[in-house]
Amino acid sequence: MITCSVIGATSFTGNELIRILAHHPHVKISSLTTRSEEKIYARDMVPSLGKANDLVIEKYNFQKVAKSSDVVFITLPHTLAMEVAGDFYDKDKIVIDLSADFRLKRADVYQDWYQEKHHRKDLLKHAVYGLPEVNREQIRKADLIANPGCYPTGSLLALYPLIKEDLIKRDSIVIDAKSGVSGAGKKLSMATQFCEVDENFGAYKVGKHQHTPEIEQLLSEVAGSKIEVTFVPHLLPVNRGILSTIYVKRKPGVKKDKVVKAFEHFAASEPFVRFLGVGKFPTLRNVQFTNFFDIGIALDERSDQVILISAIDNLVKGASGQAVQNMNVRLGFPEEAGLIS
Amino acid sequence: MITCSVIGATSFTGNELIRILAHHPHVKISSLTTRSEEKIYARDMVPSLGKANDLVIEKYNFQKVAKSSDVVFITLPHTLAMEVAGDFYDKDKIVIDLSADFRLKRADVYQDWYQEKHHRKDLLKHAVYGLPEVNREQIRKADLIANPGCYPTGSLLALYPLIKEDLIKRDSIVIDAKSGVSGAGKKLSMATQFCEVDENFGAYKVGKHQHTPEIEQLLSEVAGSKIEVTFVPHLLPVNRGILSTIYVKRKPGVKKDKVVKAFEHFAASEPFVRFLGVGKFPTLRNVQFTNFFDIGIALDERSDQVILISAIDNLVKGASGQAVQNMNVRLGFPEEAGLIS
Amino acid sequence: MITCSVIGATSFTGNELIRILAHHPHVKISSLTTRSEEKIYARDMVPSLGKANDLVIEKYNFQKVAKSSDVVFITLPHTLAMEVAGDFYDKDKIVIDLSADFRLKRADVYQDWYQEKHHRKDLLKHAVYGLPEVNREQIRKADLIANPGCYPTGSLLALYPLIKEDLIKRDSIVIDAKSGVSGAGKKLSMATQFCEVDENFGAYKVGKHQHTPEIEQLLSEVAGSKIEVTFVPHLLPVNRGILSTIYVKRKPGVKKDKVVKAFEHFAASEPFVRFLGVGKFPTLRNVQFTNFFDIGIALDERSDQVILISAIDNLVKGASGQAVQNMNVRLGFPEEAGLIS
Amino acid sequence: MITCSVIGATSFTGNELIRILAHHPHVKISSLTTRSEEKIYARDMVPSLGKANDLVIEKYNFQKVAKSSDVVFITLPHTLAMEVAGDFYDKDKIVIDLSADFRLKRADVYQDWYQEKHHRKDLLKHAVYGLPEVNREQIRKADLIANPGCYPTGSLLALYPLIKEDLIKRDSIVIDAKSGVSGAGKKLSMATQFCEVDENFGAYKVGKHQHTPEIEQLLSEVAGSKIEVTFVPHLLPVNRGILSTIYVKRKPGVKKDKVVKAFEHFAASEPFVRFLGVGKFPTLRNVQFTNFFDIGIALDERSDQVILISAIDNLVKGASGQAVQNMNVRLGFPEEAGLIS
Repeated sequence: MITCSVIGATSFTGNELIRILAHHPHVKISSLTTRSEEKIYARDMVPSLGKANDLVIEKYNFQKVAKSSDVVFITLPHTLAMEVAGDFYDKDKIVIDLSADFRLKRADVYQDWYQEKHHRKDLLKHAVYGLPEVNREQIRKADLIANPGCYPTGSLLALYPLIKEDLIKRDSIVIDAKSGVSGAGKKLSMATQFCEVDENFGAYKVGKHQHTPEIEQLLSEVAGSKIEVTFVPHLLPVNRGILSTIYVKRKPGVKKDKVVKAFEHFAASEPFVRFLGVGKFPTLRNVQFTNFFDIGIALDERSDQVILISAIDNLVKGASGQAVQNMNVRLGFPEEAGLIS
Repeated sequence: MITCSVIGATSFTGNELIRILAHHPHVKISSLTTRSEEKIYARDMVPSLGKANDLVIEKYNFQKVAKSSDVVFITLPHTLAMEVAGDFYDKDKIVIDLSADFRLKRADVYQDWYQEKHHRKDLLKHAVYGLPEVNREQIRKADLIANPGCYPTGSLLALYPLIKEDLIKRDSIVIDAKSGVSGAGKKLSMATQFCEVDENFGAYKVGKHQHTPEIEQLLSEVAGSKIEVTFVPHLLPVNRGILSTIYVKRKPGVKKDKVVKAFEHFAASEPFVRFLGVGKFPTLRNVQFTNFFDIGIALDERSDQVILISAIDNLVKGASGQAVQNMNVRLGFPEEAGLIS
Repeated sequence: MITCSVIGATSFTGNELIRILAHHPHVKISSLTTRSEEKIYARDMVPSLGKANDLVIEKYNFQKVAKSSDVVFITLPHTLAMEVAGDFYDKDKIVIDLSADFRLKRADVYQDWYQEKHHRKDLLKHAVYGLPEVNREQIRKADLIANPGCYPTGSLLALYPLIKEDLIKRDSIVIDAKSGVSGAGKKLSMATQFCEVDENFGAYKVGKHQHTPEIEQLLSEVAGSKIEVTFVPHLLPVNRGILSTIYVKRKPGVKKDKVVKAFEHFAASEPFVRFLGVGKFPTLRNVQFTNFFDIGIALDERSDQVILISAIDNLVKGASGQAVQNMNVRLGFPEEAGLIS
Repeated sequence: MITCSVIGATSFTGNELIRILAHHPHVKISSLTTRSEEKIYARDMVPSLGKANDLVIEKYNFQKVAKSSDVVFITLPHTLAMEVAGDFYDKDKIVIDLSADFRLKRADVYQDWYQEKHHRKDLLKHAVYGLPEVNREQIRKADLIANPGCYPTGSLLALYPLIKEDLIKRDSIVIDAKSGVSGAGKKLSMATQFCEVDENFGAYKVGKHQHTPEIEQLLSEVAGSKIEVTFVPHLLPVNRGILSTIYVKRKPGVKKDKVVKAFEHFAASEPFVRFLGVGKFPTLRNVQFTNFFDIGIALDERSDQVILISAIDNLVKGASGQAVQNMNVRLGFPEEAGLIS
């Protein structure tokens, strides 16, 4: 039995990791930690745990966690995460970091978008971007897995088949994304007070969201040349889920059929990708509380426009579910273990 | 033209006062103030104001407000309000205080429930509890009007006709109240973050809510003897409105008809009381954005149980609308002025 | 491996049964049926089922279901359910009926509240009311289990320990219940259109809800004498969950401690009952997607009033989870099987 | 005093017309009609009307309405509206039709998108598209005003200044629109049941929505050449409001400054257009219950991409408020009359 720990276990993604790991057939939770002093029963934060479940969330203690864990999941805020992830990496643990700290390859780009210096630049070259559908082989050997952001997961899996097979114009990508409020994490904020969000809707960080370089980096890698995207996030009055409506244009000469085939092919080999077809579109309900990435497409009859609509649960495929999927890949477990019952 | 000011104009109730006063036919807003330095156009907080509206919310300055205002509305948090209200009262202004500071007659009771000493005990005897349906004559002559709390308004107007006509047992009153989130004010709080409230529901401060003594005080006054109530507030995942389900028992010998008549009589003479009848019940939708108090009742066929269900908008009849109604009464304006178009 | 079927598999409770049974360790789903002709993949209605899951919901065929099933769950509307349940009972199947048709012992009471004649009166004496915390021993031997209504489950489990130990006045029970919209089932209705429910709240069927006799019947049985309750249901703008705020009075001489002990004792022996304590109250979030019944209590310092606040998920402990719990009891499986991971 | 009537007064837009017209300073409501037999007090559907308001909604009677009305507002479903509108037009009434029936100039295009034959083709040439910001002069003389759809209003007012001044590429327009549920009207539908919409989000009628030709028709007219757009509507879990995120590309050589100036200029002369500036974006809250059209823009630093984000209340500027604005223009009242207090 593999042992694993969650650092930052009281966050939304920490709670979600507990929910998933608690019934994972091949792992045992050895340690759950928080920055506060107070000792908390995990069952008080994760209602699905049984009455008799005695997992406790305790104050973080590096030595204790290091001793008891094969795998360490980190759900700390960025910049806090890099130190802790580095410490466990140095101790030869398998580290799965859910923060943004090891997603970008270049420390200067990190600093531009996060306004913080990177203190473990030495590790950037060891980190693997943990999107299994794209980087599965690298993840099998990685000891530092940078778990993707929620918006990037929803966008990248939609664009990947088209970029990989070179079917679309690279300067035409518009991503109009809509996220539930849990994407903002549990921190106290006026913008996420009930009376601000309820019955309301709007865009934020238009063209400036810190997930933009993460999307552009992977697309550029896959394409073999620089790709820039227009990315506009919006805040939905719901708890969970991201729906991304993506507008791209086919390259001259690319038949519609090729686009459809690209998605059929992609979905056929991926356990968590579901292609709904042409003219069929997912809603958040389709994916909430699951690790699925659902996608449907429309092909404009009158133009070369292609519309991709994808949905994920930001806390599952967009965070904790994907982290467990990465662990499964890394440790050679069935990829669905703990994620589909 | 009477001039009026709002101290605390950026709060939910402050915004609501602006909304109402801006189209009041007999008053002019002379000053809107806040504790912060930043100057804000009222139209940026109150969307219904026109583009050309140039009302500004500015840093509080006592002299300036005192000079320019006949009536001062105060929407500051309790304990802050008492000082400011006192200052304006001392300057012979008509003060309408929306906080709890002058609602309770006894300073010791105030201290028990609000954990703060009262610094203007001298004014308690001058303050009139501003529930026009009960205290209209006193309000006409009052210079310090303590505007009732939202929960008390929803409960008291339901119970008043029955207590006044002595139709119910005094030890049998149970108030099960459900409020929208704006009742908590605009302050930052984990309990009112979207992800806490959305799709959730629960009770809070069970048997301990600070509005309890306010309810008991007025009922006792009307009854001429001490009345205690069981009061349980709940938090609804909606922005606005309070629905109160109230359980009382008829006194022996009191016919059902008398109960119905009491409400018919009450509603007939009150501009903002609407009695829906027996077996007809209000919902929040009936009263949102209005100054109405709606009530419907059920009379148990099998017992002496009477069920009263009332609805108000907590920000209007439960706060700012009632404050304007009080002003109308005090100044001899038609009671509906500015409140019904 | 035991085989089980769901008749009415496209309803909310049918979907929920599929979700739970799909990962139950001791049963296999043999048949899922609907009244319509269209064949539907269960995975299209129950998002947590894997991509590869090939369970199909098909047009109802009695012979086919009877042949392939040891246990038959019925989630049809009342009056439709009684015929179908009767047919399977006659074929010696174990029938768990989620409708109201076999919950009331007396056909005349059924007709009073449901305005329909009962066509299988002969079976009423064989039906066992499936509240395991109360009727566990009878359920072990029952072949027709009448799964309780959602409101009754939330109220009865709160009142049972107090009635059983004779701690409260029997004529003092007030149940103020608030339910999410899924409690109304999937049928098309103006009252459950989004624009009616959203940002709204109100009571309905005040003193007339058809779950009233079901609550009174069991309480009367436990007490050994007739008990009547005041029951007021309200509709919450949420999907799932029932919160019940229940007001009762202690019998003269009953110490508060006895009340607390009654709940501690009850929770200690029940796998799905969680007692939060005095002054601690559940919210819907605590129980959503779980089979738990959570309860917290308040004891008025000034009177003999006791306030009970309970929460359940109406689709799980209030319907499908409880149905599986009943199956577990009936077949001698661990009671948590399939319900706690 | 001008008299006006509302045909279809029980619909969402009918109710909203009553709300607005009831306090309009220059008109009197003479008749409110419905298709059903039941007589309804308007105050029971429009909570802001006073207790004493005695407006009644009655069964439709053409003669009665025609006799008593100078202006007739029609909020019937399309195809029903065309006959009724035609009848009143024939009687020399000023008709403001909120349906789609007279918005498209060509009967064949109407039939393509609405799957119904047009029975009053003769009137199409007399109808004026009632977007005052674009067609004010024509509206002054029109007796049949086709009030625009909600989506078109939100999109057209954003694109109009850019198309008019020829600043953007005409084949690059992508409209990603998100609407509250009241946009679907009051009709009973599974897609708008609470449990379907709540906590959910998705696109619908992708590339096929019947508002598409209406958008294209006006843009083409303004441009003087055919314009096609990509239009994707989404359903938001809120009652009111449309937010449109629109992606366009500047023409070669068009400086950013020109784009900004176009909006400043537009807003300066229009009473209901508010330009928030560059990098400032509206939310639904800004416009709910108002007749404002709010817009903010972003100009991508790296490309020629321009992002326009607009917000309206679908029931006010997107329907009933705009209808009253049209009446004000037609009758020479101040354009804000009844719309800004």
